[in-house]
Amino acid sequence: MIFSVDRDVLLNQLLIVQKGLPSKTPLPILYAIKFEVNEDHMILTTSNTDVAIQVLVDDHTLSIKQAGKVAIPGRYLIEIMRKITSQRVEFALIEDKLIVIKADRSEFKLRLIDVEDYPDIDFLDLNDPVVLDSVLIKTIIKETNYATANTEKRPILTGVNFKYLDNHLYCVATDSYRLSQKNVKLRTHSKQFDIVIPNKSLDELSKILDTYNDDVELFINPNKVLFKMNKILFQTRLLEGTYPDTMRIIPVEFPVVIPFNKEELLAAVERVSLLSPRDRETNYNIIKMSLRPDRVVEMSSTNNEVGDALEEIIPSSDAVGPVIKIAFSSRYLVEALKSFSSSEVLIHFAGEVKPFVIKGNLDADLLHLILPVRID
Amino acid sequence: MIFSVDRDVLLNQLLIVQKGLPSKTPLPILYAIKFEVNEDHMILTTSNTDVAIQVLVDDHTLSIKQAGKVAIPGRYLIEIMRKITSQRVEFALIEDKLIVIKADRSEFKLRLIDVEDYPDIDFLDLNDPVVLDSVLIKTIIKETNYATANTEKRPILTGVNFKYLDNHLYCVATDSYRLSQKNVKLRTHSKQFDIVIPNKSLDELSKILDTYNDDVELFINPNKVLFKMNKILFQTRLLEGTYPDTMRIIPVEFPVVIPFNKEELLAAVERVSLLSPRDRETNYNIIKMSLRPDRVVEMSSTNNEVGDALEEIIPSSDAVGPVIKIAFSSRYLVEALKSFSSSEVLIHFAGEVKPFVIKGNLDADLLHLILPVRID
Repeated sequence: MIFSVDRDVLLNQLLIVQKGLPSKTPLPILYAIKFEVNEDHMILTTSNTDVAIQVLVDDHTLSIKQAGKVAIPGRYLIEIMRKITSQRVEFALIEDKLIVIKADRSEFKLRLIDVEDYPDIDFLDLNDPVVLDSVLIKTIIKETNYATANTEKRPILTGVNFKYLDNHLYCVATDSYRLSQKNVKLRTHSKQFDIVIPNKSLDELSKILDTYNDDVELFINPNKVLFKMNKILFQTRLLEGTYPDTMRIIPVEFPVVIPFNKEELLAAVERVSLLSPRDRETNYNIIKMSLRPDRVVEMSSTNNEVGDALEEIIPSSDAVGPVIKIAFSSRYLVEALKSFSSSEVLIHFAGEVKPFVIKGNLDADLLHLILPVRID
Repeated sequence: MIFSVDRDVLLNQLLIVQKGLPSKTPLPILYAIKFEVNEDHMILTTSNTDVAIQVLVDDHTLSIKQAGKVAIPGRYLIEIMRKITSQRVEFALIEDKLIVIKADRSEFKLRLIDVEDYPDIDFLDLNDPVVLDSVLIKTIIKETNYATANTEKRPILTGVNFKYLDNHLYCVATDSYRLSQKNVKLRTHSKQFDIVIPNKSLDELSKILDTYNDDVELFINPNKVLFKMNKILFQTRLLEGTYPDTMRIIPVEFPVVIPFNKEELLAAVERVSLLSPRDRETNYNIIKMSLRPDRVVEMSSTNNEVGDALEEIIPSSDAVGPVIKIAFSSRYLVEALKSFSSSEVLIHFAGEVKPFVIKGNLDADLLHLILPVRID
């Protein structure tokens, strides 16, 4: 196996498949990137327990002298490619045991594990795709993934539920303290599906989508979903089980609605959280928010050891409804606000001990919900 | 005590005294910043076991309504000031127990510890200064501090030795594996001194000097040194004991001298270190460097598990002397090279098992020395 390629081209592809390298595995071969070098292209593959990634390299700078297969230690290979400054790099396999990498006056020899030990990766058949725009997928991940659970208490909650029905895509994430829900009407028609994708996989997919702007084809079976992006295959396992019905926890009547400038609200929440004590269960800062009789919103926190903080915010237009007082984890509100593109947000209150809902003026299809905590 | 001041002005001064807050202390009052507010100025003080810092605030934006003294929890105060976006902040003391901080529509109340509990800080008398330029001090810290020891095996080596004699300032740092030495001729005359300043104190001083460009006055006694920068006092304890005589370990004859382009050498050392095994004692990567008969320099490393790396560098002009081969911790060379301003460096070799010396074309007064390790 002998080939040469532009360093930048190879590094970019390596940084994509890197996201499929395991951080820890009992199968050392998985620390390697599998190279399948054919006559006029090569295929790079990585996999771990969550995801498998494959990229096709057929760049015009790729010059293949001799085809072959090899599994190259991934971390070392990527570190070497990062530090190399020459334009081109050359790879040559020696006796199936060493790969020699040459770049200008640098030469690296890496010991190899037998490529035949690399497990077969079972990518789904490319039949009957669901087609989604890459920007839409990226936006949904940004808007929902933060609200997934990060403990394994209820494993199903560590993923985002994607449900497709009658031209609508319904996406929900919740850790049972807060929830994010995005409903999108799609122009294209597709078969029905209802899957839960692990949050870590979505994080990695989101990073890959940073450098990809085109349609993405989804292929789904009961255990896996494969995202096909032109020359990239990204496959992730799905979470097993039935996602809870979250619709019933979203209140339908909101006697109080308060409009805010998003940045102003965010800054005030962050300031008032500085001194606030932490919730026992979640370890997050608890703050109080109230609509006062003078129609000004007050946020406050009290910490017996440290002191008190108080913020007044004048709603960006008239608040609707009677006075109300509610307490919640400030971090939930901060994270919800940050996921909005909108400059104006509306907070809808159903009552002092009921979940409240945040919507944005420019994000009609997005809803965030936060459970309050009881105030003593 | 009541005063108001521009937020930016106060924050800048707080970020200076912050460097004197302890990370951990059995004396909780030291987590506070002491404010002494007088008729037309105020003084802020912090201290820990290593350093004490005092700044004078007499900015024209400072408006004092009522003088007084108070000790305000430092970390909370600084976090609040960072998050405040209003131009002005107002401080008022309530019954010696609470400080109220107002900024636009924000109000913070912080509980206080009795300011009378704040220990008296014994700053040295401002008599008989040694005057040094701030840029010189900053440069010396950058060039030497990295070479100090970071373990307490020999506590004296955790500081930089500053010795003044006959218009010359001699600065040395070593961790007994490598050494940095800077000798400067001063225009001004001063009394003789020979002190060792802890590396952590020098790090903090260096950060303060980032925003100060003027003469610095040094006041020295056997236990402490006080750096006076216009409105800032920075005092640090000195390390006790006699600094070792390092002159005798610097070789005087160098049969081999090789000139390098600094950036090229640095990049090659970093690449060849990627695979190299670690030295048992220091946990640093060991690499080999040799001058070959063809007058090309070769660097290499071998890792039985991972593989080999090889770099060739053509000296920037002709190398002097016979062929030589030497092994050393690559990190020592990387750190030494990074501390030079020079674009060209000369490596002077005294022999295969003797320390080698690095000098720069633009840093005549600076010398770095590295001890080799034995090659099997």
